[in-house]
Amino acid sequence: MLKEVLLGVLTGAVALTIGILLGHFAIDKGSSVPDWVRDASRDVDESIIEKFLAELDTNQLRENLRELTKVPHMATTPGDEATVDFMLKRWQDPNTGLDSAWRENYKVYLSFPNKTSPNKVSVVDPANTVQFTAREREKVYKPDQEDPEVVQPYAAYSPAGNVKGKLVYANQGKMSDYELLNRTLDLTGTIAITRYGGEGRSKKAINAAKFGIVGVLVYTEPYDMNDGLVSESETYPHSWYLPPSGVERGSYNIDFGDLLTPYLAAKDDTYRIPKEDITGIPPIPAQPIGFEDAERLICELDGDDAPNEWQGSLNCTYKLGGPGFKSTSTFNNSNVHLDIYNTERLEYSANVMGIIRGSVEPDRYVIYGNHRDSWVHGAIDPSSGTAVMLEITRVLGKMVKEGKWRPRRSIIFGSWGAEEFGLIGSAEYTEEYFSKLSERTVAYINVDISVFANATLRASASPAAQSVIFTASKQVKAPGTTTTVYENWKQYSNRTSPNYGIIPNVGFLTGAGSDYAAFMHYLGITSMDISYFYDRSKTRARIYPAYHTAYDTFDYASTYIDPGFTSHQAVARTAGNVLVRLADSLLLPFNCSDYAESLDQYLGQAVTAFEEKLAAKGISMEPLKKAVQLFRDTAAKLDRLIRDSDLAKETPLKVRQMNDQLMLLDRAFLDPLAFPEQYGFRYEAVLLKHPATNDRSLMNLNRHPPNHSPFVHVMSHLFAITCNAVWHHTGM
Amino acid sequence: MLKEVLLGVLTGAVALTIGILLGHFAIDKGSSVPDWVRDASRDVDESIIEKFLAELDTNQLRENLRELTKVPHMATTPGDEATVDFMLKRWQDPNTGLDSAWRENYKVYLSFPNKTSPNKVSVVDPANTVQFTAREREKVYKPDQEDPEVVQPYAAYSPAGNVKGKLVYANQGKMSDYELLNRTLDLTGTIAITRYGGEGRSKKAINAAKFGIVGVLVYTEPYDMNDGLVSESETYPHSWYLPPSGVERGSYNIDFGDLLTPYLAAKDDTYRIPKEDITGIPPIPAQPIGFEDAERLICELDGDDAPNEWQGSLNCTYKLGGPGFKSTSTFNNSNVHLDIYNTERLEYSANVMGIIRGSVEPDRYVIYGNHRDSWVHGAIDPSSGTAVMLEITRVLGKMVKEGKWRPRRSIIFGSWGAEEFGLIGSAEYTEEYFSKLSERTVAYINVDISVFANATLRASASPAAQSVIFTASKQVKAPGTTTTVYENWKQYSNRTSPNYGIIPNVGFLTGAGSDYAAFMHYLGITSMDISYFYDRSKTRARIYPAYHTAYDTFDYASTYIDPGFTSHQAVARTAGNVLVRLADSLLLPFNCSDYAESLDQYLGQAVTAFEEKLAAKGISMEPLKKAVQLFRDTAAKLDRLIRDSDLAKETPLKVRQMNDQLMLLDRAFLDPLAFPEQYGFRYEAVLLKHPATNDRSLMNLNRHPPNHSPFVHVMSHLFAITCNAVWHHTGM
Repeated sequence: MLKEVLLGVLTGAVALTIGILLGHFAIDKGSSVPDWVRDASRDVDESIIEKFLAELDTNQLRENLRELTKVPHMATTPGDEATVDFMLKRWQDPNTGLDSAWRENYKVYLSFPNKTSPNKVSVVDPANTVQFTAREREKVYKPDQEDPEVVQPYAAYSPAGNVKGKLVYANQGKMSDYELLNRTLDLTGTIAITRYGGEGRSKKAINAAKFGIVGVLVYTEPYDMNDGLVSESETYPHSWYLPPSGVERGSYNIDFGDLLTPYLAAKDDTYRIPKEDITGIPPIPAQPIGFEDAERLICELDGDDAPNEWQGSLNCTYKLGGPGFKSTSTFNNSNVHLDIYNTERLEYSANVMGIIRGSVEPDRYVIYGNHRDSWVHGAIDPSSGTAVMLEITRVLGKMVKEGKWRPRRSIIFGSWGAEEFGLIGSAEYTEEYFSKLSERTVAYINVDISVFANATLRASASPAAQSVIFTASKQVKAPGTTTTVYENWKQYSNRTSPNYGIIPNVGFLTGAGSDYAAFMHYLGITSMDISYFYDRSKTRARIYPAYHTAYDTFDYASTYIDPGFTSHQAVARTAGNVLVRLADSLLLPFNCSDYAESLDQYLGQAVTAFEEKLAAKGISMEPLKKAVQLFRDTAAKLDRLIRDSDLAKETPLKVRQMNDQLMLLDRAFLDPLAFPEQYGFRYEAVLLKHPATNDRSLMNLNRHPPNHSPFVHVMSHLFAITCNAVWHHTGM
Repeated sequence: MLKEVLLGVLTGAVALTIGILLGHFAIDKGSSVPDWVRDASRDVDESIIEKFLAELDTNQLRENLRELTKVPHMATTPGDEATVDFMLKRWQDPNTGLDSAWRENYKVYLSFPNKTSPNKVSVVDPANTVQFTAREREKVYKPDQEDPEVVQPYAAYSPAGNVKGKLVYANQGKMSDYELLNRTLDLTGTIAITRYGGEGRSKKAINAAKFGIVGVLVYTEPYDMNDGLVSESETYPHSWYLPPSGVERGSYNIDFGDLLTPYLAAKDDTYRIPKEDITGIPPIPAQPIGFEDAERLICELDGDDAPNEWQGSLNCTYKLGGPGFKSTSTFNNSNVHLDIYNTERLEYSANVMGIIRGSVEPDRYVIYGNHRDSWVHGAIDPSSGTAVMLEITRVLGKMVKEGKWRPRRSIIFGSWGAEEFGLIGSAEYTEEYFSKLSERTVAYINVDISVFANATLRASASPAAQSVIFTASKQVKAPGTTTTVYENWKQYSNRTSPNYGIIPNVGFLTGAGSDYAAFMHYLGITSMDISYFYDRSKTRARIYPAYHTAYDTFDYASTYIDPGFTSHQAVARTAGNVLVRLADSLLLPFNCSDYAESLDQYLGQAVTAFEEKLAAKGISMEPLKKAVQLFRDTAAKLDRLIRDSDLAKETPLKVRQMNDQLMLLDRAFLDPLAFPEQYGFRYEAVLLKHPATNDRSLMNLNRHPPNHSPFVHVMSHLFAITCNAVWHHTGM
């Protein structure tokens, strides 16, 4: 009986155990954990990142670039339309495309030269006999330059006009340059020749007009661009340097976005301001020329020697002009004649948009963009960036189509139109969807020219994004080295951080050099701009020498800039890694204390530059210092709170609250009232950075009486906006 | 053996079953459902609402009002400080208080009469002998009027000054009124007497100055306020009507918020504009007087009979003035003399803030507020509203302290300071925390004067909030009736809705009459203003007759306005119900289609008023019509999506996405550029409503050339902003 009892008990015990196990593990509880509970707390999957990085392929990058640069694709031309179709085909590919892709048109105000009446620059004697004519097209070295769609070099938005006058040399066309000339010369009725750099394109002409100058030429100085080299045998196709006939095209305007519809999306029905009300474009004709032609003009000039800093690499001592040419010249007594036939037209320009829908937070967007339009073939600008974008979308699209991955947040890809004319496509996009974008966008990643050169990574960004760029760049091998992109970068450009010691230097997005401008300055979205860049110890080049010329071709890019496409790959891996981390991280990888460190740094510069002068006027910088201190303290608190939280166990709404605080931090620095007349630049963290760099800033201090000056207004706004931003670190 | 086997099997089976049951039900699965999953999907608990409504008590309301009105509590006076302490004591009460409560100070620019040199209004003959002096204080009927802290009637922000001149009667002080006088009279150097109503207080003086008038008197016309009654025996303390000596005080300014710190919070360190730069205040002295004194002046006037619409209930035919008095009057040849001693001071004004922290979405705020400051005892304005707020916080605070309830979202209570001087406390609050508030605030509920009279509910609100006000008002019994507040309201004020048929009429928050202004117009937060109101068929009174006088006392309120405090209770129940629903609803009870219906309605008015005139100038309203249509279609889609969702089973992030769309809908109508010079009024859904009511609007059309007019600018912004708002209905 004992045995039986034991057996029964044993049987019972075994059965009980089996039952418990079955009951616990095999039978679904009615109130079982919904799938989304696990999904909601999922973080970045490092194995996905590894796989993604491994699949980004140099051959694909090369073929993307080859396809994109087959023909010139200036905004709204047939070549541009072909790239629209190409992008759509790729993004709608059933195996490697995105969830969806479409085009969005804007009707925008563009400026073109006249195909049948090309712009002319000539030297004419008093009897109007032409003594010299500048080239109308760049010299042909390869079939690319022969394409009839290569647009004549011109200054977009320069007015049409027929002007002539004695020539003067005005260096970079800064106000100070004209003022110097004006001390000894009567500039009224003259034509000025200026070199690129040092001042915005349009400002060279706007400044000139203030002195009565009637026309402006702009050339590329070989000292600035070619490290002094000027001969055909030393320039492309024999090197990366600009050939003597190469001309930098460009948009001659100050404001970004469509010029007729400021702050409104340029749709069919949108009100357009009268053309006469456009500001920021040249009031007098302007035309760019190559240094071969510039040499003919500058080296014949009469007058005093130009100052040392005005001299360049052309084969003569640069003189200021008599005005006009020296008496020993065949051009003696001759005028320079500009005959400009630019016309403005409303054209439909397309953005191509593509999305991957987020699985957990579809209403949070990471936007990645680049412009699509070029001036000519645009191999480096912008197609090197577009090639990278297409390779990123191919790999991510494939993972999505195969069901292997879907980001936590939505990803929006933007192939912007008409950037070269003033960041138009991206600006119109932000104007059309401004509330939606500002409410939902986590970050904007801009990769325009992806490879300027192949020495090192370069990144400019909101301080909040520094840490994710560092994380990503530490996981990518630097081409041609045995080290990481991060370590390599640190060797080329670094700073000493109070928090971290020596780290790579992340630039600030102060300007409006590419499509990040509307996202950062207008919407206050955390933005970054990523590329591969020069070894600055090896070249003085202002930018890669074929910039905006007919030589920026696939041949140029694949021969001289990145033959193995390994720098393209390094940028794709770094920017792509940042993208996936921003899209997948449970907690957004933004760091408030890094932000505070940058504010501190800017404040330090402002204090050094201004505190003493201000104190003399009875204006104290203490409130501003207090505000920055408060920002730093609360940022540290939020960082601590984040560090002490076990986010995977928290409610998704708690994580969302922290993410919203992080996402909206840059937005808190928007202040439309600090400079109401420059509404597009509302992002005022940048104000603190401005003193040394920008005239919308503390620099204006001395122009105004104390206490009632715009300076005090600005400082008060800075104080308020910093306090406002502090609240972003406080919960509830 | 069989038996044993059977026994064993049976034992085993029983044990297995027990085991399965234990395993399934008794042992917590490692991955069991976290508590927050249930919390996150919890919706409004109707039993909590019932309990809350039942506890709102008329006796408590009465005692709140008694306490709040013991002494005059004009902003920043000792009486105001006493109410600060009282609010804090109540909100920090351990048994019925809030989670926390504190004061926030702003240093604001206020205007006061001089206690030692009271303002004087007199009639003086050519030899400067005083023939008549207006009262300096209102007549004492009850001890309240004897309090030395009763401020002399004055026009806040009227400049100090000593002016005299011949008197003219200028009706309501509108531009058209002065223009009419100006046709036959030389107004230079005259004093105008005007009546309240028809035009803003400050504008009466600003308009006057344009005609060379040197001083303005403002009186309360008994026709407008007392249904014509003028005798002491018919007015307070014998009825609710204004006694002959009663004077309406008021702030004579146009802009809301502290006048020296526009768009910046008035903290110690904030930059203050020079006083000379203040706009919107009287350029000439102004002073309010009672109708007893007005009668002495108006009934002695010479000149033509005033137009019929200018006549009132004083005992004479109103004449325009010679200028000056009639020859048969003892005042013949005499001037009216204004001797004003107002002074401006910077004073610390306090907001008292209190919060109940949300359990699930603490970073979503429902804000409920009222100002605390009065002109004198302020029983109706604002203490009737403060009494309601305190009763709501008592009942909610008790539920929280007892652990019986905690709202899903956070509730913020604001007791604003210095509203009477221009909505200052609430405006500074929105300026200080503007990003945080605009990102996180679900709605703002304003209950200022809670009971004007006890006939019916009155509500003005963003169209999105109509439905929740209806829901709440259907659950409250209307005092003195057998029906609900909703049904009673519908009888007094209704409209025919295309969607719902006959419904109560919810007004639009177009003006800046109370503290909702900064929330609605500056931040675009869905706002509402709730009170109990007149039977308009029974009285013409502009407002309750003791408004802003020394007769607005507890005695007045409890004798004539709401003796049983049942209307106070009805407002507390309705507004409190709205508050709890906004705080607790899983999905925010906002309706996009109601919004679309209102836009349609406004558009209809604009089309009727302008389409023909515009067409004649070649301007089409079609784009605007299309935009509104698009808004309506996408709103309907979102409503359908919401209806078809089983939200309780959705991830909290999906619900949050919909809630964010609903919360931010009103924000999408902000457009700082539509009227850059009136930045405080950025909320432009209101533009469509404006044509009939406001000069920042389409009304300006005829002042400008076609196609380039501000009208087209505005219409284009309206179009853009409507399109922008459409995206709020679209997911991802």
